[in-house]
Amino acid sequence: MIDTMPETITAAMLVIGNEILSGHTKDENVEYIAKALMKLGIRLFEVRLVRDEESAIIEAVTALANRYTYVFTSGGIGSTHDDITTASIAKAFGIPIKQNIEVMRLLSSYYASNGVEFNVARQKMAELPVGATLIKNPVSVAPGFIVKNVHVMPGMPDILRAMFDGLKLVLNVGAVVHSRTVSCMIGEGVIANDLAKIQATFPDIEIGSYPHLEEAGILSTSLVLSGTDQVKLEEATEVVRRLVHSSGG
Amino acid sequence: MIDTMPETITAAMLVIGNEILSGHTKDENVEYIAKALMKLGIRLFEVRLVRDEESAIIEAVTALANRYTYVFTSGGIGSTHDDITTASIAKAFGIPIKQNIEVMRLLSSYYASNGVEFNVARQKMAELPVGATLIKNPVSVAPGFIVKNVHVMPGMPDILRAMFDGLKLVLNVGAVVHSRTVSCMIGEGVIANDLAKIQATFPDIEIGSYPHLEEAGILSTSLVLSGTDQVKLEEATEVVRRLVHSSGG
Repeated sequence: MIDTMPETITAAMLVIGNEILSGHTKDENVEYIAKALMKLGIRLFEVRLVRDEESAIIEAVTALANRYTYVFTSGGIGSTHDDITTASIAKAFGIPIKQNIEVMRLLSSYYASNGVEFNVARQKMAELPVGATLIKNPVSVAPGFIVKNVHVMPGMPDILRAMFDGLKLVLNVGAVVHSRTVSCMIGEGVIANDLAKIQATFPDIEIGSYPHLEEAGILSTSLVLSGTDQVKLEEATEVVRRLVHSSGG
Repeated sequence: MIDTMPETITAAMLVIGNEILSGHTKDENVEYIAKALMKLGIRLFEVRLVRDEESAIIEAVTALANRYTYVFTSGGIGSTHDDITTASIAKAFGIPIKQNIEVMRLLSSYYASNGVEFNVARQKMAELPVGATLIKNPVSVAPGFIVKNVHVMPGMPDILRAMFDGLKLVLNVGAVVHSRTVSCMIGEGVIANDLAKIQATFPDIEIGSYPHLEEAGILSTSLVLSGTDQVKLEEATEVVRRLVHSSGG
């Protein structure tokens, strides 16, 4: 099976923030990270969304860091009282927090050049787990950081994307998963049995069936085939296309 | 603290499906459920997205069912080989799967009236954990189901919404959380210290600070206050408004 291939590079994402769970803010980062990882050949196997609560963050980051090659977090690293991600992740790994000299220098020069006071609250953003690697923030300077296999980024989509774009240059990448989609205007129940047989014939190609409800209650289906072996992928796609054609789709 | 009030009704959501984690399909259900639960006074405390993989589903549903009042799942209950949610959840609770007579009757009459063959694949949708309570599907008949505190629904947004709209009439609801938003064109760092003091003065009101990046790199901030006590909420909101005003925001 694809999932247990030894060279598979896996990832999880941890979204931290009450505002997402209350429906107040729509998460835009999961889809971005999912697509970006896909292109890199890194498999996003799990996502968790938790509240700004120390115990919830510690439990989630510990579980995910133990299980996957990489963990990417978003949210909770700003300057306000509800930003507890950094402290919680440091605690999860038993690493002390200390004022990071390099970040103090970066931030004080940034705020000075903008005529903004570098107050105590903002200095909180320089307090990082000892030994953390910085993730450059080309937008608003205050960096993200890496501890073990956990990559900690803010929730603001523009900043997270800019950070990730730099980060992805240094990640280990795996075999890229390619995909083909066969769309048809038939319900998946029509072809389910034959599709299962095709899946059994191509164990290395993952075949997903995603029904949609079109206007007027008509069912359509997207059949998505994916795998790292492009020759087998094309073969399997052709077989699925023939099935759909012969089923009137 | 709000979180540990004994009457708090809590919930988690479990999104099941490779298509979401690969970025192929955008999840639309989390935001819907988050907002709907908020209106009901049910607190969505955690969301997990996992692959169509038995062990992943079992682990997640077990952890969430033990921890929260309600669990809502989406995805993986159709007729194709990759639909393994029902079997996995039954296995998680050690409940056998059996063909449900009522669902067989519903589906056979539905397909007959549409001139569609009720084939073996589609009959899979009638195989449910023994003793499960059905969740009515007003769109395409094949029901969701409830086992213990877990509410199992399909991933198609229209159907999930229609199911949830019926379901919410029978859920236990809690005290509704009201919220007020104070928006300002200042970075959160300006007011972070004073905001922490206001939070300490109003421990029952949750104050979240959400920075945004506007055009031209200008930072703005949404301060979201929420709580069940509307009098305290208005009081705290007024104090926050005064802080913002005196800070030039």
